[in-house]
Amino acid sequence: MSDIRYWLEDFTPGRIFQPAPRKITSAEIMEFAQEFDPQPFHLSEEAGRASILGGLAASGWHTCSIAMRLFYDAILQYAAGEGSPGVDFTEWRKPVLAGDTLTSTITVLESRQMKSRPGLGVIRLRHELVNQRGELVLVMEHPFMARTREGVAA
Amino acid sequence: MSDIRYWLEDFTPGRIFQPAPRKITSAEIMEFAQEFDPQPFHLSEEAGRASILGGLAASGWHTCSIAMRLFYDAILQYAAGEGSPGVDFTEWRKPVLAGDTLTSTITVLESRQMKSRPGLGVIRLRHELVNQRGELVLVMEHPFMARTREGVAA
Repeated sequence: MSDIRYWLEDFTPGRIFQPAPRKITSAEIMEFAQEFDPQPFHLSEEAGRASILGGLAASGWHTCSIAMRLFYDAILQYAAGEGSPGVDFTEWRKPVLAGDTLTSTITVLESRQMKSRPGLGVIRLRHELVNQRGELVLVMEHPFMARTREGVAA
Repeated sequence: MSDIRYWLEDFTPGRIFQPAPRKITSAEIMEFAQEFDPQPFHLSEEAGRASILGGLAASGWHTCSIAMRLFYDAILQYAAGEGSPGVDFTEWRKPVLAGDTLTSTITVLESRQMKSRPGLGVIRLRHELVNQRGELVLVMEHPFMARTREGVAA
């Protein structure tokens, strides 16, 4: 617990977190798709090229899961987090293709203490993932609960 | 393409699809978490029990990905589908624990032809996943594009 750097008070509206970029390989895309989303354009370069996606493309759920990992690496592992009840919306704006490098920008939209639970607050985060051509591929916004530095929750 | 059973016209509002139930194992939970969401309660039974989740719990993104697979198995592989631009909302209502059996119910909420793209339409689907105790664990709603049986899109 001594690793905690980010308490509710640290998520000030407008603050931006930028995880390290992440390259996505064709092997990862196919492995994820085989298990969760075996549509042809997620399973082979050839089928991807023949589709409107234009190449071997990651499942949208794979892209979301990568966004989660980037969120974990940059924030969550260091946060006094208390989980998330869901996702407000998810937009898959463009295909994510094998070999793409994704850069995530996570912005704090708002932050408030809960009146009903002293020591606990709710933050809203926006994730924007952009590829190496600067194209926005994923947008999502979700609430995230965190404890205050002073904390009485638990 | 001769396998297509579900065209736009087949997604009548109120129609329900029910994929086969799916049991989720601790090995799957840990494997997914290791890659995408390595929070302690997704990685060991012990840490899960020590958390408010009450046991080794699946990442919310894992549950979503399983919902995707159930959707694929029951509908998508047989559908004249044209993809989905995103998810309206996702609610993780209860933890999904190792050994749980999830049953998905997918309901057609609405369906309309696109005026701008003859031969193509937009359906809205609601997914509800329930565990073996009848508890709702996941709800999500999203649009899904499909071609009409007569079709001129493409």
